[in-house]
Amino acid sequence: MAGYFIGVDLGGTNIKLGCFDEAMALVGRTSVPTDADMGPDHVIGNIVKAGQKLLKKAKLTEADLAAIGIGTPGPADYANGIIIRSTNMPKFVNTPLRDRVAQGLGNKPAILENDANVACWGEFAMGAGKDVGDMIFMTLGTGIGGGVVCNGELVRGVGGNAAELGHVIIYPGGRACNCGQRGCVEAYASANSTAARAVEAIRAGEVSSLKTVLDKKGELTSKDVFQHAENGDALAREIVEGTAESLAIMCVNMLHTTEPARIVFSGGMIAAGDALLSRIQHYFDEHIWTLKKETVDICFATLGEDTGIIGAASLARHALQHGQIGGAL
Amino acid sequence: MAGYFIGVDLGGTNIKLGCFDEAMALVGRTSVPTDADMGPDHVIGNIVKAGQKLLKKAKLTEADLAAIGIGTPGPADYANGIIIRSTNMPKFVNTPLRDRVAQGLGNKPAILENDANVACWGEFAMGAGKDVGDMIFMTLGTGIGGGVVCNGELVRGVGGNAAELGHVIIYPGGRACNCGQRGCVEAYASANSTAARAVEAIRAGEVSSLKTVLDKKGELTSKDVFQHAENGDALAREIVEGTAESLAIMCVNMLHTTEPARIVFSGGMIAAGDALLSRIQHYFDEHIWTLKKETVDICFATLGEDTGIIGAASLARHALQHGQIGGAL
Repeated sequence: MAGYFIGVDLGGTNIKLGCFDEAMALVGRTSVPTDADMGPDHVIGNIVKAGQKLLKKAKLTEADLAAIGIGTPGPADYANGIIIRSTNMPKFVNTPLRDRVAQGLGNKPAILENDANVACWGEFAMGAGKDVGDMIFMTLGTGIGGGVVCNGELVRGVGGNAAELGHVIIYPGGRACNCGQRGCVEAYASANSTAARAVEAIRAGEVSSLKTVLDKKGELTSKDVFQHAENGDALAREIVEGTAESLAIMCVNMLHTTEPARIVFSGGMIAAGDALLSRIQHYFDEHIWTLKKETVDICFATLGEDTGIIGAASLARHALQHGQIGGAL
Repeated sequence: MAGYFIGVDLGGTNIKLGCFDEAMALVGRTSVPTDADMGPDHVIGNIVKAGQKLLKKAKLTEADLAAIGIGTPGPADYANGIIIRSTNMPKFVNTPLRDRVAQGLGNKPAILENDANVACWGEFAMGAGKDVGDMIFMTLGTGIGGGVVCNGELVRGVGGNAAELGHVIIYPGGRACNCGQRGCVEAYASANSTAARAVEAIRAGEVSSLKTVLDKKGELTSKDVFQHAENGDALAREIVEGTAESLAIMCVNMLHTTEPARIVFSGGMIAAGDALLSRIQHYFDEHIWTLKKETVDICFATLGEDTGIIGAASLARHALQHGQIGGAL
C-alpha cells in the first residue's frame, strides 16, 4: 500500500489533521479553527488548505496521497459521505463533506466515519487493541460513545448507527437519558452523569465534602467526584462505585454479545486511572457467570488526543486495502 | 460453487441430516438415533452411515460432495472442530468430531458450529433474514440461544462464544440464572422462565386460573401461560407482559450494539404468535429512544425444524465460498 494518508478530526471548534506514511508513522500534523459559523464552504476550504499545507511541509504532493479519512460526529450518511446535520456545525445540512474534501485534495479516495468509530478504529489498529481481532470501545465523556470491531471490521450496522453503546439499557425504568430512553448506561456512567448523580444526591440532602465545591462552583465534574472519593468521602465513593458497576454490567453484556478479546475505555474520565479501572474489574468479576472462567481484558485507551487523526488515517488505509473505497473519484 | 452439501444437526437424541444442491434446494433428508450412550465412535459412525445413505439415495457419490456442515451444542472448540464436552453426550470428551465425520465422507471440507449459530445462519441465509446483511437471532426454548450476523458474517468472538444473548443482563440483581449471573434475559423470557415465573407467583399465593393446571400436572409450560392469558387470566397476562418487555429491552440493546436490519425470534415459544410478537413490538416502542425513528424489523423465524440442517449446509457453502474452510483434508 504505497502512499501517504491524511486523517482529519473535524470538531465543532478545531480541525486536527495528521499526515501518515503507509506504516502509519506520523510525518506531520496541524490544527486549525473550524470556523463553523462561516458555513460549510469555509470549513471545507479550511480542511483542504490545511491538508495542502501539511503535504507541502512534508515535501509531498497530492500525487503522494493514497487516501483520506475524516471523522466527525453524526448524524450523517456515512456510506455516502454526507453530513445530514450537525449539533456543532448547524450550517451543515446534507453537506457532501467527503467528496468535497476529496475533490480539494487531488480527487483521492476518501472515507467519512463517525468520531466514536474513528477513535475505536485508531485504538484497534494502532493502540490498546492493536494485537486483537475483536474489540469493544467505550469513550467516557459528556456522553458515552462506542465502537464495535468484529472479525477485524468495524460494525457499522444497517444504517451506520451501530455501537451507540451509551444507550444500551442497563436499568430499565431508571434515570432519564437525553436520548428519550430510561436507564441507559450513559445516564449513569458518563463523566457528566457521574457528576450529575453527585449533584442530585447533595441537593437531596446527602452529606458530602463535595457540597462545599458545589456551593462554590455551582457545579461538579467527575474529576471532583473521583478526588473526593479518594479522600474518603462516602457519597463520592458511592457514586464512583455506581459508575464502575454500570460499566462492568456493560462489559458482561458486551462479552455475551460479541465476545471481544479486549474492552477499551477512553475519554476524559479515564484520567481517574486505577481508581476506576480496578472497580470496573471488581464488579465485572461479581456479575459475570460462573459457567466458565472469562478472560476478557478490560483496559484503557493509549492514543490520547491523537486517536482521531490516527483512527481516520488508518481507517482510510484499511478501507483502501480492502476495496471499501474506490480509486480516484 | 459446484457440488452438494450435507448439513448435520447433531442432538442428544436424534441426528438429522439433509443433502442440498448448490442452490440449497433439498435433495434428501434423514433422521437417525444418536445413541449417545454408545460413545463417540458409534455416534460418528451413525452420522457417516446416514450421510452415505443420503448420497446413495440421491444417486450421488462422495465425489459430488463439496462440503459438510455440522451443528451441535457446546462447549466446543469450534475453530478446530472439537467437542470439548457435551451435556447430552457425556462420552464426548475432546472428540475431534469435525475431522472424523469428514474422514468418513470422502475427506471433504467440514465445519463445526454451535447449534444456535447454525440456526441463526439458516434463517440468515435462507429464512427470515435472507434479504438482509445484519441480523440478530434469539431462540426461545429451555434457555435463550442467540446468533449475531454483522457485515454478512457470523460473529463468533475471540473464543467462539459470542452471541450468548440469553445471558445479557437486563435486570441487575434480578432473578438468578442457571449460569450463575442474576438478571439475565434468559431468567425472564425463555419458555422455561416464563412458566417458572407463573409457578412462583401462584406458589406465593397469587390468584390465577393456572393454579388448577399446576395442581393437576405439577408443572406449567409457557403454552399454558399464553393460553390462560388469552382467556383473560390476569396473572398469566402479567407474566406474558414481563416476557415481552424483557425481549423488547433486548431488542433495544441489540439495536444500539450492532444495529441489525432484522431481529428474528425462534424456538418453541414463538407458537404463541402475535400474542407475543405484538407485545414485544409494543414494549420496544415504549423503551426505544425518541432521538430518531427506528425501523428495525422484529419478526419470527420461518424455517421451523429444518433450520438445523439448512443452516449447517448453508454455513458449509458460505465457508467454502469465502475460503474459511480448506480443500480436502
